[in-house]
Amino acid sequence: MIKRYFPILTWGRDYTRATLEADLVAAIIVTIMLIPQSLAYALLAGLPAEVGLYASIAPLLIYTLLGTSRALAVGPVAVASLMTAAAVGEIAAKGTPEYLGAAIALAFLSGAMLLAMGLLRLGFIASFLSHPVISGFISASGILIAASQIKHLLGVSAGGKTLPDILSGLAAHLTEINLPTVVIAIFATGFLFWSRKGLKPVLEARGVKPRLAALLVRTAPVVAVIVTIVVTWALGLQEHGVKVVGAVPQGLPVPSLPPFDLALWGQLAMPALLISIVGYVETISVAQTLAAKRRQRIDPDQELVALGGANLSSALSGGFPVTGGFARSVVNFDAGAETPAAGAFTAIGMALATLLLTPALYYLPQATLAATIVVAVLTLVDLGAIRRTFSYSPGDAAAMVVTILVTLTMGVETGISAGVGLSILLHLWRSSRPHYAVMGQVPGTEHFRNERRHRVVLAPEVLSIRVDESLWFPNARFLEDTIYGHVAADPAIRHVVLNCPAVNFIDTSALEALEAVNAQLKDAGVRLHLSEVKGPVMDRLVRSDLLTHLGGQVWLTHFDALSALAPELTRETLGQARCETAR
Amino acid sequence: MIKRYFPILTWGRDYTRATLEADLVAAIIVTIMLIPQSLAYALLAGLPAEVGLYASIAPLLIYTLLGTSRALAVGPVAVASLMTAAAVGEIAAKGTPEYLGAAIALAFLSGAMLLAMGLLRLGFIASFLSHPVISGFISASGILIAASQIKHLLGVSAGGKTLPDILSGLAAHLTEINLPTVVIAIFATGFLFWSRKGLKPVLEARGVKPRLAALLVRTAPVVAVIVTIVVTWALGLQEHGVKVVGAVPQGLPVPSLPPFDLALWGQLAMPALLISIVGYVETISVAQTLAAKRRQRIDPDQELVALGGANLSSALSGGFPVTGGFARSVVNFDAGAETPAAGAFTAIGMALATLLLTPALYYLPQATLAATIVVAVLTLVDLGAIRRTFSYSPGDAAAMVVTILVTLTMGVETGISAGVGLSILLHLWRSSRPHYAVMGQVPGTEHFRNERRHRVVLAPEVLSIRVDESLWFPNARFLEDTIYGHVAADPAIRHVVLNCPAVNFIDTSALEALEAVNAQLKDAGVRLHLSEVKGPVMDRLVRSDLLTHLGGQVWLTHFDALSALAPELTRETLGQARCETAR
Repeated sequence: MIKRYFPILTWGRDYTRATLEADLVAAIIVTIMLIPQSLAYALLAGLPAEVGLYASIAPLLIYTLLGTSRALAVGPVAVASLMTAAAVGEIAAKGTPEYLGAAIALAFLSGAMLLAMGLLRLGFIASFLSHPVISGFISASGILIAASQIKHLLGVSAGGKTLPDILSGLAAHLTEINLPTVVIAIFATGFLFWSRKGLKPVLEARGVKPRLAALLVRTAPVVAVIVTIVVTWALGLQEHGVKVVGAVPQGLPVPSLPPFDLALWGQLAMPALLISIVGYVETISVAQTLAAKRRQRIDPDQELVALGGANLSSALSGGFPVTGGFARSVVNFDAGAETPAAGAFTAIGMALATLLLTPALYYLPQATLAATIVVAVLTLVDLGAIRRTFSYSPGDAAAMVVTILVTLTMGVETGISAGVGLSILLHLWRSSRPHYAVMGQVPGTEHFRNERRHRVVLAPEVLSIRVDESLWFPNARFLEDTIYGHVAADPAIRHVVLNCPAVNFIDTSALEALEAVNAQLKDAGVRLHLSEVKGPVMDRLVRSDLLTHLGGQVWLTHFDALSALAPELTRETLGQARCETAR
Repeated sequence: MIKRYFPILTWGRDYTRATLEADLVAAIIVTIMLIPQSLAYALLAGLPAEVGLYASIAPLLIYTLLGTSRALAVGPVAVASLMTAAAVGEIAAKGTPEYLGAAIALAFLSGAMLLAMGLLRLGFIASFLSHPVISGFISASGILIAASQIKHLLGVSAGGKTLPDILSGLAAHLTEINLPTVVIAIFATGFLFWSRKGLKPVLEARGVKPRLAALLVRTAPVVAVIVTIVVTWALGLQEHGVKVVGAVPQGLPVPSLPPFDLALWGQLAMPALLISIVGYVETISVAQTLAAKRRQRIDPDQELVALGGANLSSALSGGFPVTGGFARSVVNFDAGAETPAAGAFTAIGMALATLLLTPALYYLPQATLAATIVVAVLTLVDLGAIRRTFSYSPGDAAAMVVTILVTLTMGVETGISAGVGLSILLHLWRSSRPHYAVMGQVPGTEHFRNERRHRVVLAPEVLSIRVDESLWFPNARFLEDTIYGHVAADPAIRHVVLNCPAVNFIDTSALEALEAVNAQLKDAGVRLHLSEVKGPVMDRLVRSDLLTHLGGQVWLTHFDALSALAPELTRETLGQARCETAR
């Protein structure tokens, strides 16, 4: 039991010197990658730079204790930071203590929700988000985030939470562009884009091994950070209007409680739920992908617990919502991380950075951080997915497009809510019309097949229907409609046999539909039968009234039913293949 | 096309003298039943008495033109009236012109929504309501309605929209009880309850035929109305504090437009949608039940159009939301109505009543109408359904109990919304964990069965999995979890064969899950295969990338797959039954 909730007790036992070395190397690479990212995502969330650092210490330690993924790297990520900015911006003005307090409360609330869902084993809630919706949402968020950073790249002050607002805000402030800022932005963005593809060959040409070169590429943002800090400091650019990060408090975060304010928590409940679900879906996807590559297992419910603990610890140490980052986890995995201990070592690295490097960050231009964000999030945008999805399923593509458009024009919360609603609507629509077949007997056999697809023989007085799905409320009415329709269309019918090999479940709605069908058919002189009902379904049916009132019978096989209800027919078609019956 | 939207063109052709006589008899009975009901439900909705009469004229005529059910009787009903009171009460004070205007706007909006859903063929939206939720909601509404009428039975003025509010309101006004009102209430309630069971034997003893006696029982409310009017008038009881209906405008409704006020419509949109869906579910249930008894068909989408038209016409003639009434339709059916023309004749009857009888209604005590309501709605309350549902499905029973409790304590809108949410949650939870089986070969055959239930032979390097459900987003993650779990647990596995005879559909989420599984398994040295993919599913899959990247193959039968991937095994188990292979 304790081992289930503390996976460290399992993997910690086999910890060796070799594992330690592998984890340490991965931790160093991830720390170098995480320093600029944690600052940048704090900026994106509208929070002071140190909040990003704080959110990269305690949560990583807690995930080491609770997490089941060997390679997942938690911390601030782009989409959750955007969602934080959107939620907290509704409540307080950026830069105020209330804004910071609300962000901390959001992390606390989200952590509590994730923890509760994990303990109640509610991981299935992540199923509410279909892939097209989450993909559309991430693409739209990427576009929104990139657009929101343009102001930092130009050195102007503009606002807006939707794409039209952001763009019109920029247009209104175009005259205020700060030239030195733009130069830094062009350098940083250009270098970062180039480094993605151009840096690796350069390193390899100098004798760096390909695998190491691929990892070093990921540390390029730190190079941009160092260069622009030095340039800004040397040329005194902050006096020429280049906005810098400024004074960052030196030292570790002080443990503290989030503001306990019921009204605030009420306002934050919905955003916290959405951040939790989106963050969990992202986390679980990357964790599962990386685990499967090495034939390892993760426990989705325990991941909820771990992510919940990480967020609670983030809140208690003055941080904001965190989640498992995709790019960061892949780097951790590629760098050879073998256990969650790599996360703990990264946390130590981040703590050292918070203690020692913060004075150096004073001259870090915000434009550099914005460039880091833009280059990182543009990889999230995948509009080609619309075309690919469309060619497979136009309905799913429509859900994706609506999610993108609503997110861009009405903001992240409305966007993800609309997407969830659409996913469920589409699912219910599809569930409400299951595949079914009117069956006839394949001549000379005991088999029955769809009369539309096979040459079969039908018994005039018997309607054989096979529904290829479990029976539950979305298709309960469909079931009634279908049976009544066939019976009304053919006055010869005296028996309806529902063939149930594909029915894994009958819920109360479908049970009542069957009871109604049975009663109505009785009044109309028709008997309802069931055939090939599965064991678990039958176990439940005997607890209901259906079987006592059933006009017909429950048959073990469909052939048994037809043999009894239309003996001439089955004998005749079987006669065509006497050798079979002789067996 | 025209015939589809105007079913009268079909049944009108075969209209005979005999049909006319049958419809006329039914119309007379229904009219006598409808007069007190229409007045009572207007009272329940907090509207003037004549609004109930207006809502029983035009909607019935329009349904005759558009409806596909031969026996459905539309008009004001209890639950929709309660929902109207709840929605409109949020916007204006009872008795004001704004209150009436909002009720009319609600009927208009609901009619427009129903019509749009019908034209777009969105009848599946009714599937959102599972039977346990609708049953719980109707029971709770019945209790709320009965409780809300107690004040009229006692002659006190009290308010409240939730059960605790209503009861505490009554307690606060208990001293104001009006004795003559209570006497009338006791007589009316007692007589109506007695008439349900006691009147039929009395009539039969006097030589009335059983069928006619059963119908005459339904006209008992009119007797109560006449007796209490005469008593109130003769004794001048209204001067002793008995509240009466008072002056009701004589004459037919004047066509008019509902108030066009965007803010008002915005406030009414959600209630209108809920009333539409609840009303439609009630309508379609009773229409389908009655049609099936005579092997007739109804068209669920056209019923949306008809109900939409009926509500629009109600609004345009100064009425409030209407729907198909259960008791009334059953009486119509039992009285022999053969076509929707019976509804048109009922409308004529109601128009005559509006023209001629309204002066007589002046002395009608409100307590009599309240008694009619209480006796009618208590038949809606079926708390025994909780126990029955629990024994079949505790989950569904929980959804029912929550719907009842939320409706009683937080009102009808919150109640039905919570119910819908719970239904969907339960459905997604069930969809998210489909039944699946690891299969082995039945020795000596080409058949494969669940290894847990049958004595089968497994191939050590091949994992055979059959998922007994369509693959879509609620179970996409389950699919990944399951496959990864089995592969991680058994290092010998080199092939995974997904057996798909039960898969009717693969949505984009499940497709991407399969692509991810394929890629991850490839990295781990395992090949993914598919077997027995259905035709329509295969047609879609060829439009995706899955098949090009598939590590394994797509096999026509599962036996083909195993013959190729584990030839020793299949040969060996087949060898045990050489006579079979010799066939």
